[in-house]
Amino acid sequence: MIIEGKNAVKEAIKSGVTISELKVQKGIHDNDNVIGLAKDKGIRFVFCDKIKMDKLSESKKHQGFIATCEDFKYSTIADMRELAAKKGEKLFIIILDGVEDPHNVGSILRVADCSGAHGVILPKHRACSVNDTVVKVSSGASNYVKVAMVTNINDTIRELKEDFVKIVCAEADGSPMYKVDMTDDIAVVIGSEGNGVKALTRKLCDQVISIPMKGNVNSLNASVASGIISFEVIRQRNFK
Amino acid sequence: MIIEGKNAVKEAIKSGVTISELKVQKGIHDNDNVIGLAKDKGIRFVFCDKIKMDKLSESKKHQGFIATCEDFKYSTIADMRELAAKKGEKLFIIILDGVEDPHNVGSILRVADCSGAHGVILPKHRACSVNDTVVKVSSGASNYVKVAMVTNINDTIRELKEDFVKIVCAEADGSPMYKVDMTDDIAVVIGSEGNGVKALTRKLCDQVISIPMKGNVNSLNASVASGIISFEVIRQRNFK
Repeated sequence: MIIEGKNAVKEAIKSGVTISELKVQKGIHDNDNVIGLAKDKGIRFVFCDKIKMDKLSESKKHQGFIATCEDFKYSTIADMRELAAKKGEKLFIIILDGVEDPHNVGSILRVADCSGAHGVILPKHRACSVNDTVVKVSSGASNYVKVAMVTNINDTIRELKEDFVKIVCAEADGSPMYKVDMTDDIAVVIGSEGNGVKALTRKLCDQVISIPMKGNVNSLNASVASGIISFEVIRQRNFK
Repeated sequence: MIIEGKNAVKEAIKSGVTISELKVQKGIHDNDNVIGLAKDKGIRFVFCDKIKMDKLSESKKHQGFIATCEDFKYSTIADMRELAAKKGEKLFIIILDGVEDPHNVGSILRVADCSGAHGVILPKHRACSVNDTVVKVSSGASNYVKVAMVTNINDTIRELKEDFVKIVCAEADGSPMYKVDMTDDIAVVIGSEGNGVKALTRKLCDQVISIPMKGNVNSLNASVASGIISFEVIRQRNFK
């Protein structure tokens, strides 16, 4: 896997991802001292001209830095539980039900990092895996956030429910989230932008919550919706 | 200006934007009945083959629908005040201080629509205007949300302050927003992703607020941050 872009590469280095080689564009103005950071960590780096960098870049937005590193390491739900226990916090998981746009998934990993969610669950099929675009958009969050990939979201929800985790999904017709208690172990299901949460998945949820809308179009980007809900969880847990 | 994409075109038609012509791809599966909607509104439409549509498309994601319409009509701050007064609500404005990415601006217009903000203020220089990409990403919100373009953000802030509007900006080192009262007339300044709020602008603000972060990277996309803050305003005003 390659990681591109100044911030994404910098965060990858800082987080300790195994980088086999860092390519730096000749003559780049390294105002964030990415090269110094790479040197400190003993990462091998080579200078390449812009033409070669542009050719190697998949996003075409490498900003002078391309790191070749190990493939993304997925976690398990047990890892997420362990993290919550270690932090002495109630579990908070985000489940993505068919979010396919890698920009949204990357942005949701940023949300998960910032809000201190213990993990993000993605389905194996009809969804987006943690690919290069996700890593780049996540601005480094993919190096920290635990991501589990499961075969069947509904089976996973059933298992979580057996372990007394409350499952809520976000849909337009739910109860205003400000009135729903989210302080106990919880998993929030976010549906795809086009189709929302699948009917069967919705049925499995303990409660349907909504972001109360006041506009004309009333359609939020999936990552924005995840951000609003995740920080409501944080507010209820830490600022009530 | 052209509007592209099924949802963006549909919302433009519904909102009453003056569309001079709608181009529809031959043989497109019109499951949302965009054509019927255009017919009802008396909008002239023509069928074009895919090759022509692809050529006309600027975003390359036209989804079979391209509408030619009048240029975006900017509003004034007086218009925003009037809207708030009409709704009997305290003023709520979002000010973008140098947000340049049209995807972010478009997504912030969605946030403004959903949260019922009375308007968004953009600076004329070093920022993004309401261009075709913004309109498309806004998923129709640009047809409803009042957007004002000002020459100097700082002058605008001074004027708002003279009118007793509280100005807050979002930065990492501010007071947790949950503890800051945002129920009175307010304008929230969102900085650019790379550089945050400018030093002089920050000085002019009555208060610096922050989204309390719990992660490692702690960097949110500008539109996600706007969403989280806007809905905190809504929560304080309607769900306390």
